[in-house]
Amino acid sequence: MNIPVLQQQVEEWVHWLAAYGADPAGGVTRLLYTASWAEAQQALEQKMKENGLDTYYDEAGNLYGRLASADAEEGTILTGSHVDTVKRGGKYDGAFGIVAGLLALRYLKENYGPPARNIEMVSLCEEEGSRFPLTFWGSTNITGTAPFHKIKQIRDEKGISFVEAMNEAGFGLGRYRNPRREDIVSFIELHIEQGAILERESIPIGIVEQIVGQKRYSISCIGEANHAGTTPMAWRADALRGASEMIVAIMDAADRVGAPLVATAGKIEAEPNVSNVIPNKTTFTLDIRHPQGDALDAFCEASIAACDTIARNRGLRLQVEKQLDARPIDMDAALARRIEAICREQGLSYKRMPSGAGHDAQIMAGQYPSSLIFVPSHRGLSHHPAEYTAEKDLAAGVRVLIQLLYELGYEKEAK
Amino acid sequence: MNIPVLQQQVEEWVHWLAAYGADPAGGVTRLLYTASWAEAQQALEQKMKENGLDTYYDEAGNLYGRLASADAEEGTILTGSHVDTVKRGGKYDGAFGIVAGLLALRYLKENYGPPARNIEMVSLCEEEGSRFPLTFWGSTNITGTAPFHKIKQIRDEKGISFVEAMNEAGFGLGRYRNPRREDIVSFIELHIEQGAILERESIPIGIVEQIVGQKRYSISCIGEANHAGTTPMAWRADALRGASEMIVAIMDAADRVGAPLVATAGKIEAEPNVSNVIPNKTTFTLDIRHPQGDALDAFCEASIAACDTIARNRGLRLQVEKQLDARPIDMDAALARRIEAICREQGLSYKRMPSGAGHDAQIMAGQYPSSLIFVPSHRGLSHHPAEYTAEKDLAAGVRVLIQLLYELGYEKEAK
Repeated sequence: MNIPVLQQQVEEWVHWLAAYGADPAGGVTRLLYTASWAEAQQALEQKMKENGLDTYYDEAGNLYGRLASADAEEGTILTGSHVDTVKRGGKYDGAFGIVAGLLALRYLKENYGPPARNIEMVSLCEEEGSRFPLTFWGSTNITGTAPFHKIKQIRDEKGISFVEAMNEAGFGLGRYRNPRREDIVSFIELHIEQGAILERESIPIGIVEQIVGQKRYSISCIGEANHAGTTPMAWRADALRGASEMIVAIMDAADRVGAPLVATAGKIEAEPNVSNVIPNKTTFTLDIRHPQGDALDAFCEASIAACDTIARNRGLRLQVEKQLDARPIDMDAALARRIEAICREQGLSYKRMPSGAGHDAQIMAGQYPSSLIFVPSHRGLSHHPAEYTAEKDLAAGVRVLIQLLYELGYEKEAK
Repeated sequence: MNIPVLQQQVEEWVHWLAAYGADPAGGVTRLLYTASWAEAQQALEQKMKENGLDTYYDEAGNLYGRLASADAEEGTILTGSHVDTVKRGGKYDGAFGIVAGLLALRYLKENYGPPARNIEMVSLCEEEGSRFPLTFWGSTNITGTAPFHKIKQIRDEKGISFVEAMNEAGFGLGRYRNPRREDIVSFIELHIEQGAILERESIPIGIVEQIVGQKRYSISCIGEANHAGTTPMAWRADALRGASEMIVAIMDAADRVGAPLVATAGKIEAEPNVSNVIPNKTTFTLDIRHPQGDALDAFCEASIAACDTIARNRGLRLQVEKQLDARPIDMDAALARRIEAICREQGLSYKRMPSGAGHDAQIMAGQYPSSLIFVPSHRGLSHHPAEYTAEKDLAAGVRVLIQLLYELGYEKEAK
């Protein structure tokens, strides 16, 4: 298949979608079920129709565009990503996977007509968790793993409840299809890397083998508040000093273990947090990720043990709360081999790599053979207005997607 | 002089004063120019009168009680402390020095009649800086060093301006005497230690030789925010990791130097301060105190140099802002020797020591020979509802004060 260069088209459509939710303060803000979100979905629906796709919503607000096969029993190849953004996010995160799907389906329809198997694109309603404290609302609805018990309690910053927001946007009221999908044969997500590895190595395509396992802890050191001027060093139970020693010890250990392990202390709070009082309490978060579950567990255990030793040495009480424990998720190996072959055919260099970030593909992979394909992110910047991927890299990703969807959707023996 | 034990009296009067501003949430809250502050001053004025003192206010709101001499040319011996408290403070900080002065003047008047030199007690209007961002308003008015340029701009948490609050309390309107005092021969402040040294060493009296010098810095590390999952350890410019290394290095160095040096990182703020983003900025405060100016300067310079090295190693930009630079202040040596002699006569053990905390005596010492006498603080607790000093220790302090005021006020050759 000789797929033409699509650079200008993909860049144009990414910018077109970014206009929905363009934030006056910079970047794109398109939070779940808000007006800008609804406008983006409506505009996408319109564009899907214009390009010959059958469109429909499900009850969660996921928007589909279908290239139907005469043979529905063969199941559906699904591609897409999420339409929501973080506050003041970039133009590419999520949006690129949707635009790429639309371009791919248009290309396939124009050039090859109806497929042997349904091919669908999806604009997933939510992944980021930026409006409500809940992530992957789109993909968990599709896989039937959505936390319905949770949505009754949660509210956004303005106090609007999740259910209220969903209903006001027209969803969850029985108007649309049940989101649960049993017919998906493969799920393919094209996404920006959100890291700088591909750019630094000048490789246009990343083939994700696993999405890393992630553990998150909140670690509190409890000491005793005291006067900064009248308490000799030796008599202190300084919670911030203890926490600092813990952060240094864990980061040094992470350096020694090296890639692909990453460890991050991103958040810290001290009490009473005034300059002339020795802190009685300091809490920091620890985010640890590794693609191998055993290595992840071992590093986490060693980190907690190191904190425990430091706490004892400094006369502090340690409280460790585990906030997240996500196992590593494997992407489908057969799909990865197929993508590898496509890259070779198209003369594109590629890299098999883990994903350090979470993606809808990790939810889908629990139910369907799934694949996640990366294109480079300039300077690794993401969740930032300056997020950028070069046009040629976007186009390379779309060409790989087109070829993959062709093989899965038109060549019946492929699966 | 055989001064009777005054335990019950001093304890009773401390509790009596603590009722003005008793906070429903615990402790005592008596902020400058508030209703509870005014009630406390009025009650003190009444009690001074009942005990035979001539009372007057100055324009700042300082309240005096005078035991007048027939010979006004001999100047005035002044004792006292501050009547304001921090929010939810203790019963003793400041208040004890006022109550002690009142008990001492009553005792001297009853037993010895009019002195050879005026003896006055003062309930200083403000020291803590807890309502407005301004400290030592009482003592700086007396010494003529008050920052009048500042009070036009500052406001309390409710938006009330300093001048508004002062005028509403009846001060700064020309009704009272000019606060500036040129007639003070000696200033004596009796105060709780606010540290645990006297208690740990079972010593009832601390004779302060210097009030420590203090430097305060705000130190910012500026790196680059990045995704916690997709950024390898080696590529990070992690501002919180850098700040943690700085805190550890400075605290370890302070341990090596040892007492009387103290170094405290009391406040820390990270940006964006979320668990899954590498912090791009972390700011912490560094409070360093030492009674010798040279040693203080040397440690501060070494600390900043250590931060600079760490910042360079971690790819961070360092910003250092000096927020406070107070030189060490010597208390009067002749007064200290006199207090030492009194302790020996009264059979009280004593310790010459620096004060790690700031006190009105450091302002007074700039103009008048001044002395600061400590009594033990249980567990070193201060600025806390549980602040406590045993009755026998309070009484010992008052007996030393009585003897000192007698010698300075009744024995004309003493000065």
